[in-house]
Amino acid sequence: MSSTPARITALDTHDIRFPTSRELDGSDAMNPDPDYSAAYVVLRTDAGDGHEGHGFAFTIGRGNEVQVAAIDALRGHVVGRPVAELCGDPGTLSRDLVGDSQLRWLGPEKGVMHMAIGAVVNAVWDLAAKRARKPLWRLLADAEPAWLVAQVDFRYLTDALTPDEALRLLDTARAGREERRDRLLRRGYPAYTTSPGWLGYDDAKLTRLARQAVADGFRQIKLKVGADLADDIRRCRAARAAVGPGIRLALDANQRWDVEEAVRWTKALAAFDPYWIEEPTSPDDILGHAAIRAAVAPVRVATGEHVHNRIVFKQLLQAGALDVLQLDAARVGGVNENLAILLLAAKYGVPVCPHAGGVGLCELVQHLAMFDYVALSGTTEDRSVEYVDHLHEHFTDPVDVRDGHYTAPTAPGFSAALRPASLARYRYPDGTYWAADRRAQRPMEEQSA
Amino acid sequence: MSSTPARITALDTHDIRFPTSRELDGSDAMNPDPDYSAAYVVLRTDAGDGHEGHGFAFTIGRGNEVQVAAIDALRGHVVGRPVAELCGDPGTLSRDLVGDSQLRWLGPEKGVMHMAIGAVVNAVWDLAAKRARKPLWRLLADAEPAWLVAQVDFRYLTDALTPDEALRLLDTARAGREERRDRLLRRGYPAYTTSPGWLGYDDAKLTRLARQAVADGFRQIKLKVGADLADDIRRCRAARAAVGPGIRLALDANQRWDVEEAVRWTKALAAFDPYWIEEPTSPDDILGHAAIRAAVAPVRVATGEHVHNRIVFKQLLQAGALDVLQLDAARVGGVNENLAILLLAAKYGVPVCPHAGGVGLCELVQHLAMFDYVALSGTTEDRSVEYVDHLHEHFTDPVDVRDGHYTAPTAPGFSAALRPASLARYRYPDGTYWAADRRAQRPMEEQSA
Repeated sequence: MSSTPARITALDTHDIRFPTSRELDGSDAMNPDPDYSAAYVVLRTDAGDGHEGHGFAFTIGRGNEVQVAAIDALRGHVVGRPVAELCGDPGTLSRDLVGDSQLRWLGPEKGVMHMAIGAVVNAVWDLAAKRARKPLWRLLADAEPAWLVAQVDFRYLTDALTPDEALRLLDTARAGREERRDRLLRRGYPAYTTSPGWLGYDDAKLTRLARQAVADGFRQIKLKVGADLADDIRRCRAARAAVGPGIRLALDANQRWDVEEAVRWTKALAAFDPYWIEEPTSPDDILGHAAIRAAVAPVRVATGEHVHNRIVFKQLLQAGALDVLQLDAARVGGVNENLAILLLAAKYGVPVCPHAGGVGLCELVQHLAMFDYVALSGTTEDRSVEYVDHLHEHFTDPVDVRDGHYTAPTAPGFSAALRPASLARYRYPDGTYWAADRRAQRPMEEQSA
Repeated sequence: MSSTPARITALDTHDIRFPTSRELDGSDAMNPDPDYSAAYVVLRTDAGDGHEGHGFAFTIGRGNEVQVAAIDALRGHVVGRPVAELCGDPGTLSRDLVGDSQLRWLGPEKGVMHMAIGAVVNAVWDLAAKRARKPLWRLLADAEPAWLVAQVDFRYLTDALTPDEALRLLDTARAGREERRDRLLRRGYPAYTTSPGWLGYDDAKLTRLARQAVADGFRQIKLKVGADLADDIRRCRAARAAVGPGIRLALDANQRWDVEEAVRWTKALAAFDPYWIEEPTSPDDILGHAAIRAAVAPVRVATGEHVHNRIVFKQLLQAGALDVLQLDAARVGGVNENLAILLLAAKYGVPVCPHAGGVGLCELVQHLAMFDYVALSGTTEDRSVEYVDHLHEHFTDPVDVRDGHYTAPTAPGFSAALRPASLARYRYPDGTYWAADRRAQRPMEEQSA
């Protein structure tokens, strides 16, 4: 080994697609046929310690190659950086990526380019946690409040949250941190499940899976709604009958409605005592969510999986538009921006119930919720992380959900790594699954030609 | 010719980059070194009439390849469509592109993917106008109101604007349409100029260009601000001295400030009687713009070039956050979404002063302003289109600005076509300019290696 500091030597990207549309898993009113996919990034170093940083943006199929191209466009900012410096202060890279004076035109801070930044930033945090020999939630929960505050970009936030206020929130949460950490390690973090409620499932499957969810220890399930009101009434009735009155029944419209339609439709389902209505309209419609919330109470309004950055979350909170904030680990600019979002939620006293599912979103986001419990909000009251039982088998450190709770990860890192065999099989279009798929389809195409 | 209908046979893309950063043209507080670029698309057909549809997304350099990849991802929606059907109803394609159930995850309706949709939709309108043998502004101004309303996607808008209200706005504007068209053909449409005010220019150049602008007939100029307050005070003083009291002096902060900083800085420049402060903060911050507007009046608040869709414009209007709406021809989902935005502005009585500059943004957006004057708002009062004298020579139908007015285009189409010689020279990285640039740099790199 030379005496020069270890550096990032490569940023590799992979277009990974799973053929989930063939099973109607993941079907909802706006996304009838998703092929859950990952624009996957691996950071390699010359540290000689065997550690890599893994991260990804989640997409649902077509366009995953665009997402990969966006990650490729960030390579020049990362390769060559000293590893210790990068991992000791991911916030500087995060600011450099968001602030690239030419790339920011493609957002700014939204869509494909911003998700690419999130993938790379999260890969750095994965590497940092592995080098620290801690699961990410613990690296964050053990960190000094002043260092955490320095990881946050407060640009465009200071009318709602200043660095001093953020520091006070974290300082206040130091009391009881060890007890909560021990409790988390014993009991895990509450989960709710969306597995029973996909639109593509018939009532018998819905009823069977809803009962199973309660038997498995979940205290909340979620149903997709918004395609057809008569169907939704029938499905809500079946779900409520299956779980009984004591279980929370959340509804998810996946942005299907305009404001007035959202109010009308939600009220038509109110008889089934829904806990929240999720994504009732466009994720960009802050004022629309506020109007819906005022009209549908006591049904809560939840959103966030498509909220593209901290600035929109800030306004949702300022406008009183949200009862439940659903951050996503792979939609915004990575851990640093999610720290800002968790701090905003804590400031406004709004519970965070992270979005998960897809490919690996459960694996990532559990870390953020656990950090929040141990070192920021200090509570799991009215909080739970979404759980969907898809595709976990492809990860080297898959989530472990027992008795309705996520078990706290103990392996170092951000739980982001896909198994090498899964990478080789589902790489698009050249992986073994997709190559075989093309061979199987060719004779049919030749017949029809 | 066979009797089968003509179809779109190809969607070709080109990565075009101009080396503008070497001149400091286009420099502002957030974008110090733009290389004005276009992710350029050409639709070809088998109609045999020689017409192609041209469109583009504008970027400022790095990442233009990501934008091109996003346009490529739309090819399957376009190639094979019957030309007459497509050009007779671009709204159906627009809805298909925005609604693609997998691609929408990459936005929805924002960033790289949405700008790609805008490029393709605008290329269809270019083709439609050429086939109709009309400049686009005239095709729109001559259209039946009911057909125009059918071109608009009202999803997420109906709490602010319904199709019936839109129809009434267009019907009301029928009176006087011919007179305004004739007047437009005689006098043109008012322009203002940003050419004097780039941050990279020294005071002598600023003063000389500001005087020249007034001599050229412009009644409004614009200065970039936000990097350094003392500099801004000096530059505003120089500009006001150069143009005198009767000329409007607009200021543009390019998103540089947080809310409170925007208020403070704008008030510090109020002595120079600025007409508007543009992009004082994040384009996502609807509530922030409303707070700034309330605090800095009578200085007007203007924004829009980075507002990513009609839903954000809707809220800016609902919140009373804007005095001036600056739509951009290539940021949102194309002509169809800009029709929605023009209708929203008309409903709320807010003047539209479109953003332009860059590569070809003047060429495109003049058509939308001229349509608005002839057939929707019916006025040019307090309205003007930005003008920057860059890169027009690369277009086959460049804008013609005389005596502070855009001359109404008469050539059929959307004025979007780059000259073939410019395409060949500035294609990145293989065009003749960039290839020569690499050859010129190689010896230096070899020396330093």
